[in-house]
Amino acid sequence: MSHVAAIIGGGVIGGGWAARFLLNGWDVVICDPDAEAERKISEVLNNARRSLPALSDHRVMQEGSLTFTDSIATAVSHADWIQESVPERLEIKHQVLAEIQSHCTAGALIGSSTSGFKPSELQQGAATPQQIFVAHPFNPVYLLPLIELVGEAETTVRAKAVLEQLGMAPLIVRKEIDAHIADRFLEAVWREGLWLIKDGIATTEEIDDAIRYGFGLRWAQMGLFETYRIAGGEAGMKHFIEQFGPCLSWPWTKLMDVPELTDELVESIASQSDQQSGQFSIRELERIRDDNLVAMMRALKARNWGAGAILNADDIAKKPALPQDISQPLTTIERVIPIDWTDYNGHMNESRYGQVFSDAGDVVMSMVGADSDYIDAGFSYFTVDNHITYRNETHAAEAIYVRTQVLQAQGKKLRLYHEMFRDNKELLATCNQLLIHVSLETRRSCEPGAAVMAKLDALHTAQSQLPKPESLPESQWQML
Amino acid sequence: MSHVAAIIGGGVIGGGWAARFLLNGWDVVICDPDAEAERKISEVLNNARRSLPALSDHRVMQEGSLTFTDSIATAVSHADWIQESVPERLEIKHQVLAEIQSHCTAGALIGSSTSGFKPSELQQGAATPQQIFVAHPFNPVYLLPLIELVGEAETTVRAKAVLEQLGMAPLIVRKEIDAHIADRFLEAVWREGLWLIKDGIATTEEIDDAIRYGFGLRWAQMGLFETYRIAGGEAGMKHFIEQFGPCLSWPWTKLMDVPELTDELVESIASQSDQQSGQFSIRELERIRDDNLVAMMRALKARNWGAGAILNADDIAKKPALPQDISQPLTTIERVIPIDWTDYNGHMNESRYGQVFSDAGDVVMSMVGADSDYIDAGFSYFTVDNHITYRNETHAAEAIYVRTQVLQAQGKKLRLYHEMFRDNKELLATCNQLLIHVSLETRRSCEPGAAVMAKLDALHTAQSQLPKPESLPESQWQML
Repeated sequence: MSHVAAIIGGGVIGGGWAARFLLNGWDVVICDPDAEAERKISEVLNNARRSLPALSDHRVMQEGSLTFTDSIATAVSHADWIQESVPERLEIKHQVLAEIQSHCTAGALIGSSTSGFKPSELQQGAATPQQIFVAHPFNPVYLLPLIELVGEAETTVRAKAVLEQLGMAPLIVRKEIDAHIADRFLEAVWREGLWLIKDGIATTEEIDDAIRYGFGLRWAQMGLFETYRIAGGEAGMKHFIEQFGPCLSWPWTKLMDVPELTDELVESIASQSDQQSGQFSIRELERIRDDNLVAMMRALKARNWGAGAILNADDIAKKPALPQDISQPLTTIERVIPIDWTDYNGHMNESRYGQVFSDAGDVVMSMVGADSDYIDAGFSYFTVDNHITYRNETHAAEAIYVRTQVLQAQGKKLRLYHEMFRDNKELLATCNQLLIHVSLETRRSCEPGAAVMAKLDALHTAQSQLPKPESLPESQWQML
Repeated sequence: MSHVAAIIGGGVIGGGWAARFLLNGWDVVICDPDAEAERKISEVLNNARRSLPALSDHRVMQEGSLTFTDSIATAVSHADWIQESVPERLEIKHQVLAEIQSHCTAGALIGSSTSGFKPSELQQGAATPQQIFVAHPFNPVYLLPLIELVGEAETTVRAKAVLEQLGMAPLIVRKEIDAHIADRFLEAVWREGLWLIKDGIATTEEIDDAIRYGFGLRWAQMGLFETYRIAGGEAGMKHFIEQFGPCLSWPWTKLMDVPELTDELVESIASQSDQQSGQFSIRELERIRDDNLVAMMRALKARNWGAGAILNADDIAKKPALPQDISQPLTTIERVIPIDWTDYNGHMNESRYGQVFSDAGDVVMSMVGADSDYIDAGFSYFTVDNHITYRNETHAAEAIYVRTQVLQAQGKKLRLYHEMFRDNKELLATCNQLLIHVSLETRRSCEPGAAVMAKLDALHTAQSQLPKPESLPESQWQML
């Protein structure tokens, strides 16, 4: 059954929500009176399509349908989730929420992207107050997992379950408070930043460098308190607090005392920002940011930590059970090429073809019971020989798949033959891979367990009628 | 000529400084009265040795010598750089700085790791005030590039040049201010965090999640202002400020109003932190943090952005001119295995052997003039066939090198044979690699330029007397 999301307000945030739903298979209706909305949304979608799918190591996402309307009634009437992202003015939000509630179903979830308003404020005068809650996202919404949920317990629990299906990390805020949690920190930093610029201490670029070369890197993987727990060292968290406690009475910030946003200060920030980033257009900056985020989030994914652990959980939850006729080559990989796999030639680096084939070998291992439990028990397969032929280029954001044939399954030897294809069935590369069963204790070869051997035998026997792969003469290789 | 750094105060910060200098070839003298100093420093050094060297793609670092003393006079008398990292109490700092100045040379640089004191405060009563400056690092000092430098212009410029040699990103703060720049933000966030816990809005873990799943990821690669520039979109930075300007008068923070650090609040933070992170020891958390940082910084390195751009600049500045007798196999790679190249088997993944050989091929291309200018002009080599044999395992933090022989250089065909060795000359893998010269416009093969062809011919001719590689019989492979 397909789900429908109605996105009310199609700016950068609304567009990000649309992309998040659409690329996870939801049908999306966007309601925005702006004549430019369709163009703006399509730019956000293009950014999302080149970055989000590559965060998964298993799936090729099936997009839902996308429609536009200028009527809230049309947008919300069949929607399961309605997301309000209109300007941050309470009277506009009240008006839009009332219009939504007079046309939506009783079971629909109505989230607001508000940065600062509390649910009790949004709910003022509403027909069904408990249906309305805060679902505060972070830009770019299609990549960053955090969503702050604030509202009635029953509603936010339902909303959390939906957002987890979209690969997000919903954080239920238990007590409503102005600006929720994250934006309180952002507001504090913003105020301090304005003072530093006004007082001529630092430029926008110097401030950004002070963040991204130092604590910004720490906070991308552990937050404030886990970082300080480490700083406390063996003496512990209490020691840390005691050590830094006295600073609280020192003049280290001047935060509540707000600088006036004079024309001069605004001008000075804008011109410093031009100096810092003006060589890139906003579109270019967005793509640089997205490529950086994908690369870092994939790095954390390999460590199974922070935002990377969220990605792994999502991959596991949605891992497709590839339907297999084991008498035919097995579909071992279906995925999208991430930006961090490409090189200076503008295509996927040769070593990443090797990684795809390595992953394909892992899938066969897993199918025959040489899975993570088997590895924990001290046995595995090591690759000892790989012969890869490169037939065609492939690029970031392209969907590929791999078909694998078991050529030999004899004692400790397992020989696989992989073929990698582009979505249009064009052959991209082949790999003849020899794996050897090993003991992880001795790091030497040994016979596999009986259960694994039996499954391998069955697989090998089922495929014994398949023609053996032949080398394609070089003269027929596409690139040559 | 070797340089000497004197580290006064051997805690986590002093230890991090020691590692940074030592692993960059400086001789280091550590002065700390603590009987435990040597053990504590060795733990920091172990962490540094398994993470810092792998940030470079070219170098195997040569460590300097390390000695301990309990005399400041002994430590500083021959030091080029003296780094004070004693407790954050002004009278202790004055005492230590006076002792340092009565024994160091006039040309020595004296940096203080202080988080909050201004240079004018540190310099009070000093014999040579301008010699003393703030060099404020961020934990872990051996990985994070940021250093805030505050002091006399001439001194900080000299200090900046030294720190850049250590691969760091020194930020000269032009006007002195309590807590410099970064710690003003950290203090603001810390105060806000204490309130959220005291008011029961969020736990330490919820706060950390609100950071690391959202804006923390943004700040690891762009800071505050570049992020907001993007948020402003096509309408620009001024539009953004106008949009969020009004919030400054809203109750989004309660910062200057400092919560009292009662026993109850301290206890509550400590027990929430135990709940969140108590399943890991501090040592484990340090290594998780370092592995995350290395993986993310390497991800940014591939994007040549932020902290990754600093790493690339450092690699280029220090790229060793590998001395080559071209009649022998060429040394194409000397490097350390990074943690993000290992897999669930606890060793370097098969695809990363492929990456090392891909990099080795790039070095040969560069040697014969098929370098980045050549690629910009529209020509390159693509790999079309790789045959890798895996002879032995290798692990994170191990030093390896590759020797490369040119087997064929004929028209558009270039065939290389690479052998990868562990530092102890043990053979790890071989690769027979066929590259084809291509036009990047047509994406089809074509003849290389005359200059490249001439250099390739010279290389191939010089190596023509070398024995051709023979396949080692499988029976002699180490792992089997």
